[in-house]
Amino acid sequence: MTERKAFHVAVVGATGAVGQQMLKTLEERNFPISTLTLLSSPRSAGKAVIFKGQEYIVQEAKPESFENVDIALFSAGGGVSKELAPEAVKRGAIVVDNTSAFRMDENTPLVVPEVNETDLHHHNGIIANPNCSTIQMVVALQPIFETFGLKKVIVSTYQAVSGSGAQAVEELYEQTKAIIENEDFEPKILPVKSDKKHYQIAFNAIPQIDKFMDNGYTFEEMKMINETKKIMHLPELKVAATCVRLPVATGHSESLYFEVEKAGVTPEDIKALLQDAPGVVLQDDPQNQIYPMPADCVGKNDVFVGRIRRDLDEENGFHMWVVSDNLLKGAAWNSVQIAESLIKIGLVK
Amino acid sequence: MTERKAFHVAVVGATGAVGQQMLKTLEERNFPISTLTLLSSPRSAGKAVIFKGQEYIVQEAKPESFENVDIALFSAGGGVSKELAPEAVKRGAIVVDNTSAFRMDENTPLVVPEVNETDLHHHNGIIANPNCSTIQMVVALQPIFETFGLKKVIVSTYQAVSGSGAQAVEELYEQTKAIIENEDFEPKILPVKSDKKHYQIAFNAIPQIDKFMDNGYTFEEMKMINETKKIMHLPELKVAATCVRLPVATGHSESLYFEVEKAGVTPEDIKALLQDAPGVVLQDDPQNQIYPMPADCVGKNDVFVGRIRRDLDEENGFHMWVVSDNLLKGAAWNSVQIAESLIKIGLVK
Repeated sequence: MTERKAFHVAVVGATGAVGQQMLKTLEERNFPISTLTLLSSPRSAGKAVIFKGQEYIVQEAKPESFENVDIALFSAGGGVSKELAPEAVKRGAIVVDNTSAFRMDENTPLVVPEVNETDLHHHNGIIANPNCSTIQMVVALQPIFETFGLKKVIVSTYQAVSGSGAQAVEELYEQTKAIIENEDFEPKILPVKSDKKHYQIAFNAIPQIDKFMDNGYTFEEMKMINETKKIMHLPELKVAATCVRLPVATGHSESLYFEVEKAGVTPEDIKALLQDAPGVVLQDDPQNQIYPMPADCVGKNDVFVGRIRRDLDEENGFHMWVVSDNLLKGAAWNSVQIAESLIKIGLVK
Repeated sequence: MTERKAFHVAVVGATGAVGQQMLKTLEERNFPISTLTLLSSPRSAGKAVIFKGQEYIVQEAKPESFENVDIALFSAGGGVSKELAPEAVKRGAIVVDNTSAFRMDENTPLVVPEVNETDLHHHNGIIANPNCSTIQMVVALQPIFETFGLKKVIVSTYQAVSGSGAQAVEELYEQTKAIIENEDFEPKILPVKSDKKHYQIAFNAIPQIDKFMDNGYTFEEMKMINETKKIMHLPELKVAATCVRLPVATGHSESLYFEVEKAGVTPEDIKALLQDAPGVVLQDDPQNQIYPMPADCVGKNDVFVGRIRRDLDEENGFHMWVVSDNLLKGAAWNSVQIAESLIKIGLVK
C-alpha cells in the first residue's frame, strides 16, 4: 500500500451556501487535505468555520492567499473567479471554478466526471464546474446518448431557491411564515437579487432564473443550452430550456422530452441503461408511486431519474423526470468530484 | 328593453372548493337566478351557505332534487355526476358537469366557450367542463391554431393543490407550518387521496396528479392529451404532457412548447394575436420582468400568457408560459361561462 498524498486545498466562498456544502463534502469524502485555507469576500472574512472538529477563521481572498495552494475550489461569484482564479493558477494551483466565469471559454474544460472526465487533460489551470441544472440533466442523458444517440432535448425546470444562495432560502422561509401568519412582507432577493424587480416566491412559481437576454431567454436557460452542447461534445444537439423557480429550498427537478437517433428503443431499454449508469439512481415504478422528488434527494450525491415513458406520437421520443440536490451534484459534490478525478488521473502536482 | 329571463339554478357540490367559487362567480356575474338550490353529498348536507346576503341550507342531492331545475352545475365528483346528471336531464334540466364523468363521451360536448362554443348545439342534456389544466392551455392555443395552424404541443405543468380540493389546500398549509416550526406531520391527502401512498407537498414537487395508467402516464396527463384533441377538433394533433403538483395553493402554470404549420411566423406575430384573443391577457415584457405568475392570477377569470419566444432550433417551434386560476377559468368560471353561453344561444328552455 502506497502512502496517500495530501494536498493544500483552498475554498473560496467558504461561508456561502455552496462553500458550506463543499466543506461538508470534503469532510465526508475524507479528501486528502494537508492544509485547508478558507477564503471569502471582505464582508464574510473573520467568520469562524468548523471543519473536522477544528475551527478555521475565514480570510479575505487575495492573490497572495494562493501561495502553495494545490487545489482551489471557487464558489464566490463570477467576479471573484475572474479576478482571482488566474492569480491562483499563476501561483501553481489548479482551480475548480463553480461560477459561470470560464464555462464557455474554449480553453477551459467544462466537466461532469460521469460525462467527460477525459476533458480534464486539456486544462490550462482552470476547470469549470457547470451550472447546477445542466449537470443533473447531462448525467441522465449521457448514457442514453452513448447507446442510442440523441437528437433533441426540451427541458422545463422546477428549481430550488438555494440555487440563488443562502439569502434566497431565508427569504423563502420568512415569506412563507409571513403569509401563514397573515403579515406583510417585501420581496428583496428573488428572482434575481441584482435585477430591477423582486417577486414573492412563497406559494408561487417564477418563470425567471438569472436575468433576461435580448432573445427572450434567460441566462440560466442559455447556460443549460450551451453548456449541455459543450459538455456532451454535441454542438449540433437541439436543446431548448424553460427555467422556473419554485418554493422549494433544495433539490432541482426537470421535466425532459428527448428524441433518440436509434429506432425501436423502448422505455425498458432506457430504464435498463440508467439502472447501471454512473451517478444515476433509477426510481421508476409508477404503479407503486415510486418517482424522484426534491424532498427525498436532499443531502444525496446522486441524480435520481424516473417517470420514463414513450412519447405517444414520436416513435423515438421519450419523457423523463430528473431530480438532484442542486447544492451537491449541482455544485459542491461535482466540484469535489472533479478534484478527486484530477488526483486520480495525476493532474495535480 | 325586454325583461331578462331568470332561471332555477342548482349547484351540486356547493360546499367544495369549486362549488364555493361557482357561487361567488354566479354572484359576481349577477347570473339571472330565479331559484337557487344548493346540493351536496349526505356528509355536507345541512351546512349553511350565504349567497347574495341570504342564507341557504345545503340539501342532500337526490334525483328528486332536480324537479323544475333549469340549469344544474355539477362539481361533486365523477360518481355523483354519473348517478345524478342523467336524473337531472330526465327532469328537464341542462347539466354543466365539472367532473371527468362525461368528458370523453362522444355524445357530450366538451366546451371552452372561447374555443368551441358552437359545440353546445349538439348537447344531449349534459355539457362537460374540461380539466382545469386543459382549459387554460386551449384558450392560449386556439387563436394560434386558427391563424397559423398547429402541429405539436409538449406541456409540462406546475399545478396548484386546490385542484385536489379544499382538504389538499389545508394539508399544504398545515405541513408548511409544521416544517417551519420543526414539528412532525403525516401526509394524508396528496398526491391523490384514494391512492396507496401520500407524500409531502410543502417545499416539494410531486410528479403525480391523479393515478397512473398502465402506459406510465397519469390520468391527468391523458386528460390533457385527449381533451385538447376533442375541444380543438384536432384528433391528429400531437400532444404530450407531464403534470406536476407544486406547493402553490391556487394558480396553475404551464411551460408549453408548440410547433405551428405556417412558415415564417415570429414571436411578435403570436404576441399580436394573443394581445386581442378572447379570455387571454398578454403579460410579456422580459426586459421589465413582466410575465405571468400564479400569485398574480388568483381571483381573475383570464388566462395569462407570457415568455413567448422562438425555439432556437425548430423554425416553426415556440415556447410560452401560461398561467390561470384553476378554480375560476379552470373550473367555476368556465362552467358559469358555459351556462351564460347556453342562455345567449337560447339553449335553456
